Amino acid sequence: MTEILVSEVGPRDGLQSIKAIMPLAAKKAWIVAEAAAGVREIEVGSFVPPSLLPQMADTAELVRFARDIPGLNVVALVPNAKGAGRAVEAGVHGLSIPFSMSETHSIRNVRKDHPAMLAEIAEAARIAREAGAHFAVGLATAFGCTIEGSVPEDQVVRLATAAAEAGALEFSLSDTTGYADPAQVRRLVRKVKAAVGAEMLTTLHLHNTRGLGLANALAGLEEGITTLDASLGGLGGCPFAPGASGNLVTEDLVLMLNSMGFSTGIDLEKLLEVRSILIEALPGEPLYGFTPDAGPMLDYNERIAR
Amino acid sequence: MTEILVSEVGPRDGLQSIKAIMPLAAKKAWIVAEAAAGVREIEVGSFVPPSLLPQMADTAELVRFARDIPGLNVVALVPNAKGAGRAVEAGVHGLSIPFSMSETHSIRNVRKDHPAMLAEIAEAARIAREAGAHFAVGLATAFGCTIEGSVPEDQVVRLATAAAEAGALEFSLSDTTGYADPAQVRRLVRKVKAAVGAEMLTTLHLHNTRGLGLANALAGLEEGITTLDASLGGLGGCPFAPGASGNLVTEDLVLMLNSMGFSTGIDLEKLLEVRSILIEALPGEPLYGFTPDAGPMLDYNERIAR
Repeated sequence: MTEILVSEVGPRDGLQSIKAIMPLAAKKAWIVAEAAAGVREIEVGSFVPPSLLPQMADTAELVRFARDIPGLNVVALVPNAKGAGRAVEAGVHGLSIPFSMSETHSIRNVRKDHPAMLAEIAEAARIAREAGAHFAVGLATAFGCTIEGSVPEDQVVRLATAAAEAGALEFSLSDTTGYADPAQVRRLVRKVKAAVGAEMLTTLHLHNTRGLGLANALAGLEEGITTLDASLGGLGGCPFAPGASGNLVTEDLVLMLNSMGFSTGIDLEKLLEVRSILIEALPGEPLYGFTPDAGPMLDYNERIAR
Repeated sequence: MTEILVSEVGPRDGLQSIKAIMPLAAKKAWIVAEAAAGVREIEVGSFVPPSLLPQMADTAELVRFARDIPGLNVVALVPNAKGAGRAVEAGVHGLSIPFSMSETHSIRNVRKDHPAMLAEIAEAARIAREAGAHFAVGLATAFGCTIEGSVPEDQVVRLATAAAEAGALEFSLSDTTGYADPAQVRRLVRKVKAAVGAEMLTTLHLHNTRGLGLANALAGLEEGITTLDASLGGLGGCPFAPGASGNLVTEDLVLMLNSMGFSTGIDLEKLLEVRSILIEALPGEPLYGFTPDAGPMLDYNERIAR
């Protein structure tokens, strides 16, 4: 059985996109419950200035808390080298920095053009290396940008190559804006792998903005992707990319992967129960997903035992 | 460009599953508007006794009406040979009969066991042949049953073979219950094609009950499927299979196919406008789909021009 890592990004991508601030105790309960359901990696927050995203102000405390959960890989997002310093200080196992393939999006999002971002990547890579932390570069808006429209595939390849030269050891292809279609996923995964080496691109970060999320995930799996980001209840989006709402729904993704015979290590029934923490802590916040309503198929246990 | 036929089944599968009865004028407006958006096949209704499904009482009139729309393939569902007679009398271009792979589901749905259904298929095939109408058998509950649970793949293959011997010239694999996963779609499409001939299985009828609809569609496309049933607004389900709600959403499916470079002949912008007919004629009825909210990607026109 192929092992697929489902990386829960809800506490970061989900919570940063909504106005409500989830109390620290609820965040902790969420992380503990997902880990108990078998989730092996959680992006617990981002090291951005609290003045910009107050939802993420407790990230350092969450990192320290989550590190005590046995077997859990604790990762965080950082916007720049300064954030990387704070992340390793808090003790993350891994950190990732988004590098927007659309320069306009990069400037709006983190007020840095591509050369400035490559300098940040080099410095963040150095900080991560010295701390012994994993370091990934998220190739954001790789499938299109809500400001620029299409992002040329050659541009993604060129910038990925430049980021690798700057010290990136691992990439994720990020559909920040929910623009990807399955054919594009296949093409771009192949092209980036060809440019930087297959072992350096194992992760997709997808959004379900147009309902294509799981189809895009399937296309990625067929191209050898082994890590998929997802958010419980599909919570999330990008506050700087209007209209881009909702990651892959963790519940539906796990149903799909487990049913197909992939090994995720995640107990779907337990995962579905975690949703109640979000419902309680974020009253009125829309949650997505079909499996929570329909439940697993009657023969779900037969499928996963196959 | 590979041509994919998107077959709109909303006026049948959608409307039969809800309590509200759509007025005939609204049904006609819906069919006209979808045809004008480029939809080339519509399942306009089913020939079941109006006492069982009053929503379908005007199917004969709809068939006669829709036949006057140039270039539109007008199809209807029939539960048995008697329905087949009514369908060809009304002038359908094609008719399909559901044959439930789960015998329990078959008995509950149409009160017939498998041998009785094979006799109906033989008789309906004869009626269609004499009238010069297309005739398809829908292998219903092929991916699992809400009553029996798993449906063995060998059973589907055996019953498809028996139906071919009874006169079926064409099949669709129907995920009546929203149980399918992409790996299963691939396996079952391959097995049934191997048993009855690849040219006899070109259609998938999928539901989005657990959010896996488009991923399953993608798996089917990769196995050579060229016709996909869908319902505008994801309206629909099976009234005899509790919990099984919502076909593939036509809007999201067309976005995916067109973006990927398949040729559907459907103008997405025009299709999105058709939704207003449903909203007006079925007040309060839940509609599904992400593309209607998010709209096409900024670079959608570039994608489809490629």
